[in-house]
Amino acid sequence: MDKEAIRQQIVATANRRYATKKYDPTKHISEADWQTILEAGRLSPSSFGYEPWRFLLINNQQIRDDIRPFAWGAVNSLNGADKILIILARTDVTYDSDYVKDLVENIKGKHYSPTSAPSQHFKNFQERDLKLDSDRARFDWTSKQTYIAMANMMTAAAELDIDSCPIEGFNYAQMNDYLASKGFMDPTKWRVSVLVSFGYRDQPIKPKVRQPLSDIYQELN
Amino acid sequence: MDKEAIRQQIVATANRRYATKKYDPTKHISEADWQTILEAGRLSPSSFGYEPWRFLLINNQQIRDDIRPFAWGAVNSLNGADKILIILARTDVTYDSDYVKDLVENIKGKHYSPTSAPSQHFKNFQERDLKLDSDRARFDWTSKQTYIAMANMMTAAAELDIDSCPIEGFNYAQMNDYLASKGFMDPTKWRVSVLVSFGYRDQPIKPKVRQPLSDIYQELN
Repeated sequence: MDKEAIRQQIVATANRRYATKKYDPTKHISEADWQTILEAGRLSPSSFGYEPWRFLLINNQQIRDDIRPFAWGAVNSLNGADKILIILARTDVTYDSDYVKDLVENIKGKHYSPTSAPSQHFKNFQERDLKLDSDRARFDWTSKQTYIAMANMMTAAAELDIDSCPIEGFNYAQMNDYLASKGFMDPTKWRVSVLVSFGYRDQPIKPKVRQPLSDIYQELN
Repeated sequence: MDKEAIRQQIVATANRRYATKKYDPTKHISEADWQTILEAGRLSPSSFGYEPWRFLLINNQQIRDDIRPFAWGAVNSLNGADKILIILARTDVTYDSDYVKDLVENIKGKHYSPTSAPSQHFKNFQERDLKLDSDRARFDWTSKQTYIAMANMMTAAAELDIDSCPIEGFNYAQMNDYLASKGFMDPTKWRVSVLVSFGYRDQPIKPKVRQPLSDIYQELN
């Protein structure tokens, strides 16, 4: 494609992605499309490349029924979306955590020591630059990274003509308790970050309502 | 394109996006491409559609020099990226804020009242479901939304064969002080969320190193 066609396609995809409120429960995402959406999430960037996420697919009706009472913002998705992902964010990403040690050694294939220059650099980054001085702040920081993965999965879906909806409309404490009680996550390492559903809409795409660029963009001269 | 070609293109774009460490300072992004990247950010979704973001383009050398001392993670971008955006997140998104009132009335074109059912629903969502019980938690929540916009801008860039780098490597307090002291943001309403640079790389794209899907994805049956 020539550049102008690519530009038009990017804007068309952005306009096509729409927070879907009504899904057609009879339509299903192909396995090839689903794997592509997951791959767009998996290949996403994250701070220091620490990939602090996990994607849990709700694959049975019982789980949908279980979370419904405390997931008001997910009701439309629970009724008709083909796939609903629960995105978890890690709570244990610190320079001296087992997780970082394992990731550095076994995924990145590098030497790890908590006293090494890179480890101390990461410690300073978290404690001095980001001021992650509470469990909540540390979780919110890893949670931010998961929003990158979620965005990329929604864009990939839109390119495949698949609809999606990002979902924060649930009680976080109750969702965490539920996931832990069912053994779906270890609450000492994970917390729910956000949900996102995928499927095929049973509604028109509404035109985007957004602030004009002049309200949100400024060149500093 | 047929579906298989689209799937391949999505994965190719994800692999092509690479946190660029060395830019070619002689290469520049065309105005049409830049507007497309901004549009991908502007059309991004955000919680309740409240678009709590602002994109500041660093457009002169003085600003690059000013922030260099406290932006260690931006040094490579400061040296060669064609564009560097400072992404701000709002601190004043609450059900009874002037900002929400203005957005609901003037962008969404709806009636606003702090005691209306939608306003009280949003209040409960923030206070009860998300438990945004501090300034920091409220900022981190709007900051998460900005990561969606950033992700979409990086993906749009990759589709246009433009390189990018997301940047958290700076001292947040010093950046906030700087932006406020220069009058680039009102510190009662904004805080820096993240930086992202765009340009053309002067290095090969390294193959992605990521956890395998089996480590980050699970079907709950």
